[in-house]
Amino acid sequence: MGQDRSSVFDLAAVAAASNGGNNDLLLPPDRFVGDAQRPSRMPYGKYVAYDKQVPFDYPERTWPQKRLNRAPRWCSVDLRDGNQALVNPMDSERKLRFWNLLISMGFKEIEVGFPSASDTDYDFVRLLIERELIPDDVTIVVLTQAREHLIRKTYECLRGARRAVVHFYNSVSVLQREVVFRQDKAGIKKLATDAAELCKDLEGEAEGTELYYEYSPESFTGTEPDYAVEVCNAVIDVIDPTPECRMIINLPATVEMTTPNVFADEVEYVSTHLNKRDSVVLSLHPHNDEGMGVAAAELGVLAGADRIEGCLLGNGERTGNVDLVTLGLNMLTQGIDPQIDYSNVPEIRKTVEYCNQMVISERHPYAGNFVFTAFSGSHQDAIKKGLEARQMAAERAGTNLEDFVWLVPYLPIDPKDIGRTYEAIIRVNSQSGKGGMAYLLKTNHNLDLPKRLQIEFEKAVQSYADKTDKEVKDDEIWRLFKDEYLPVEENGACAAGDVVADHGDESLKSWGQLKLLNVSISSGADGSDTVLKAKLLDRGVEPGTEDPVEREVCGAGNGPLDAFLNALSSIGFEVGVMDYAEHAMTAGTDAQAASYVECRIGGEGAERIIWGVGIDSSIATSSLKAVISAINRSCR
Amino acid sequence: MGQDRSSVFDLAAVAAASNGGNNDLLLPPDRFVGDAQRPSRMPYGKYVAYDKQVPFDYPERTWPQKRLNRAPRWCSVDLRDGNQALVNPMDSERKLRFWNLLISMGFKEIEVGFPSASDTDYDFVRLLIERELIPDDVTIVVLTQAREHLIRKTYECLRGARRAVVHFYNSVSVLQREVVFRQDKAGIKKLATDAAELCKDLEGEAEGTELYYEYSPESFTGTEPDYAVEVCNAVIDVIDPTPECRMIINLPATVEMTTPNVFADEVEYVSTHLNKRDSVVLSLHPHNDEGMGVAAAELGVLAGADRIEGCLLGNGERTGNVDLVTLGLNMLTQGIDPQIDYSNVPEIRKTVEYCNQMVISERHPYAGNFVFTAFSGSHQDAIKKGLEARQMAAERAGTNLEDFVWLVPYLPIDPKDIGRTYEAIIRVNSQSGKGGMAYLLKTNHNLDLPKRLQIEFEKAVQSYADKTDKEVKDDEIWRLFKDEYLPVEENGACAAGDVVADHGDESLKSWGQLKLLNVSISSGADGSDTVLKAKLLDRGVEPGTEDPVEREVCGAGNGPLDAFLNALSSIGFEVGVMDYAEHAMTAGTDAQAASYVECRIGGEGAERIIWGVGIDSSIATSSLKAVISAINRSCR
Repeated sequence: MGQDRSSVFDLAAVAAASNGGNNDLLLPPDRFVGDAQRPSRMPYGKYVAYDKQVPFDYPERTWPQKRLNRAPRWCSVDLRDGNQALVNPMDSERKLRFWNLLISMGFKEIEVGFPSASDTDYDFVRLLIERELIPDDVTIVVLTQAREHLIRKTYECLRGARRAVVHFYNSVSVLQREVVFRQDKAGIKKLATDAAELCKDLEGEAEGTELYYEYSPESFTGTEPDYAVEVCNAVIDVIDPTPECRMIINLPATVEMTTPNVFADEVEYVSTHLNKRDSVVLSLHPHNDEGMGVAAAELGVLAGADRIEGCLLGNGERTGNVDLVTLGLNMLTQGIDPQIDYSNVPEIRKTVEYCNQMVISERHPYAGNFVFTAFSGSHQDAIKKGLEARQMAAERAGTNLEDFVWLVPYLPIDPKDIGRTYEAIIRVNSQSGKGGMAYLLKTNHNLDLPKRLQIEFEKAVQSYADKTDKEVKDDEIWRLFKDEYLPVEENGACAAGDVVADHGDESLKSWGQLKLLNVSISSGADGSDTVLKAKLLDRGVEPGTEDPVEREVCGAGNGPLDAFLNALSSIGFEVGVMDYAEHAMTAGTDAQAASYVECRIGGEGAERIIWGVGIDSSIATSSLKAVISAINRSCR
Repeated sequence: MGQDRSSVFDLAAVAAASNGGNNDLLLPPDRFVGDAQRPSRMPYGKYVAYDKQVPFDYPERTWPQKRLNRAPRWCSVDLRDGNQALVNPMDSERKLRFWNLLISMGFKEIEVGFPSASDTDYDFVRLLIERELIPDDVTIVVLTQAREHLIRKTYECLRGARRAVVHFYNSVSVLQREVVFRQDKAGIKKLATDAAELCKDLEGEAEGTELYYEYSPESFTGTEPDYAVEVCNAVIDVIDPTPECRMIINLPATVEMTTPNVFADEVEYVSTHLNKRDSVVLSLHPHNDEGMGVAAAELGVLAGADRIEGCLLGNGERTGNVDLVTLGLNMLTQGIDPQIDYSNVPEIRKTVEYCNQMVISERHPYAGNFVFTAFSGSHQDAIKKGLEARQMAAERAGTNLEDFVWLVPYLPIDPKDIGRTYEAIIRVNSQSGKGGMAYLLKTNHNLDLPKRLQIEFEKAVQSYADKTDKEVKDDEIWRLFKDEYLPVEENGACAAGDVVADHGDESLKSWGQLKLLNVSISSGADGSDTVLKAKLLDRGVEPGTEDPVEREVCGAGNGPLDAFLNALSSIGFEVGVMDYAEHAMTAGTDAQAASYVECRIGGEGAERIIWGVGIDSSIATSSLKAVISAINRSCR
């Protein structure tokens, strides 16, 4: 390229020089509160807006009002684009393991390497062919630059394959035409058509192989769309695909250069301007330099693309190829079968991490450790309510819960559907409210706390979390709960007749004033004439400072609880019950019962509202224990 | 909510039931090559497409043809939304460190906590206020649910603040209205307006504080857009903002539920239907559940949003908040000043990793370890050519290279602009071609190999990489290169007169047949009558098996090289020079010279084309050494 022609740099420098003069750079003052942002020292004058690099508009676009409604064709390029971007590319053991994973997930097209550029890739393709490891319904793709000796070597590598796609490419961008290839548009196009012609010529050497072609105008995103179409159409004319023997035109966002709406415009333009569109499979190959690869792929599908190339969990050069796991599971959340089995994401992740020797981020969509975790209290609360509401709705509908429609706040997907569990969903830190710990107590300890009790207990957890400034794990919540409400009945397994146990327990002495030693209840036909006798151990207001005294109490009333309150009143404990809840902790007649009693304790003017909790196999005893729990707490 | 009204679950179950009947789910056979994909076992029948959950269309959209042209208002929510999503939330030391980072980067709005929900947050806000750590031009934001006691506590926390935004929210989505709040649309709207009224009432308690309001219709993405507008407008009517005292309406993509074009439609609809738009700052708060948070933010800005809330490097609940670093640097690549200082991304990353106690992925845009690394040979080759072309263009333009327009294949940003170096750009593995190693030799060893020499040496590197199946590090490439071309002149520092050194070196014995011991060159005025005398050490064809012999040779010719070839011919070495290149390795007159000579060696029928490399402070000697390097290589 002569110096006399305008270089891409000179044109860009002129465009970039106008950046600073753009008054739009400043946010008008009615668009913020407080003080304005200041210019930074970032050298924005070095950079050229995409629309100045590749001027293009496509007002005819129809994609913005479209919605995803089916899975595209998926092609995994993990063994090629993904592999070439690894510090330590896969050895054949790792490649085979990855290959087996892809097959088991249902991929029907897999790019297996760049055999003309690497002996390792060559050998792997030969291994797949010679060991007959390619299932009948799977098509391998091999990549080659559009250069004669590389294409020849590619065909040599394919001998004996039952079916294959030869994928040839050359870079067509404005920048690469000038600085890498130093050729004009016609010269670059000829590189592509020469390659296509050579491919056709070599078909004779591939006898017995069902051959397809894929052409990529590499660096498509840096290319004038009309020129990209010109090159693609010239290649299509040479290959001459038919509806019976299609070819793939693959548009690589080799570098992601702008917002995905512009990419979608370009895709729709290409899709509507290709020759023999019925014989062409239009494919996309997005990268993620600007963090928008997934969006580019999805908007590109709306814009007319039929096929997506990407890698599992987004491996690939630089920021990676588009992540096929995210794309597939995004489809699932829209009620679309991804046609790939993502039912065991932990296993997929494990294999990918092993083969790529890279670790997946904790916030990676669907696969990261924390993506089904809610630390926020209001989120936790909503998830708990959502799960319950869904369960009730499924029961009303008479549908198996597993199959019932998934609508849960903050959980766009049922973790079970991708092989993950609820366990890690709710975690509690100092930022959490009552929802999280309530969920944990319910899920792990079968305790379904009434809402006002949740609020009361939340304070204890919050105070502990603020003190430790760390996540509060389930076992700590359980310890806090027991310490607060259950120390006497800690092991929870004692029946009514066993309540005399635990005398020697140190924590008992230091904890509560009263302990239920035994109880007998008699009542008539309707319970309204219940008489209750109980023996209590009274350790005094400050347990440990005086000798415990056994007290016999007796009371009558409208049921055991009422009778017990009357009995307590006889020894000076003024307790009223404000609210009461009770539930079986497990199914079956031998289940433990949990009782929650909200008590008003103390005489007029000194009243306190306090919850107590009791657990016992007897539903009557558990409620009495709950009252004692409240009394003991009031003395602390 | 009564059982008699249709539950959101019932409606969703009906919608989901139609998923399976959607014929569009199957890709038509003209859209792929080879065999069709198969239905998977993923339970797509459980999920409801977004447009069935929230039916909405906005054909009036204007955003698709817009382009980014200025930075929005940025608000960091790292200390709130980011912090609440950590296993171990930040202690005050970490919070302060993060705060200082944000201030130093130029953020003017920072959400600092949820003081009514957490004592840690409360204490931190008090600390900022009491220690006067808030710069005059920075506005703090505090979050609170739209509930009376929380709002009161929030105001209490703000006393003495110079300026603050009270950010209140309630969830307004279809799902949360039913399962969490059990209220109808009017009831949910009243929660918001009650909160707004309480805020207005409490203003008296905040005397001396310049107060602003922010309202978030939480779970906006799960809400009918017209209802979201209705709630926001009701809040706006209560708060009654003016162009002088604006309020913020913040649309949270609390959960990312669909493609960003739909989100952008919703944003544009809200933007064009808000009351008192001139007095409202329209803000977005995208999350990343479907991996499209960055795209949602950028398309949302095109659609009319003025302000973005997010976190550095994408921390936040589940998959994280939108990443402000990626957004800001995407702006930079479009020639837009992000108005935030991202010039030291490694330092930002270090601080974020320390404070959040989480590790950033190696493929994270702009910040990951590998995002400026090219392993692919063709990428490496293009980068090398691009950097060279840019340098030449800058020289032609007379512009300082650092300030010159940035256009380099595969590198959307100049790593230097964000505090990263070129060092890690090019790494070589078995998938790399000549470009990578050529770049490394040039950058780290000042050797600018001619292209055909690159191809020759590439084979040695490739063979080594294939054998080791690992990344080939720079020091290994250098060792391979020296072993292949330079063993005699390994230390490269010897002047012409010093070439007799190294007799005792073991590797010499085993390596090459010839070694230049000394040389004298005389020539006339135009060099055409050059006479060269040299003393060579001849170790025989198999060095080490016979005693070395010193040989004196003499030749005349058209310059030293020609004379040397003739001299060699006199002792039986038939060498012709096919190509020749030479360059100084550093600036200055005392620089070393590197010579590359492509030689035809051997008589007719036994000819081989082989490169030799010589390094010497004498430009004449280096070329002679290059010839000897080629001869010695031909004997190996």
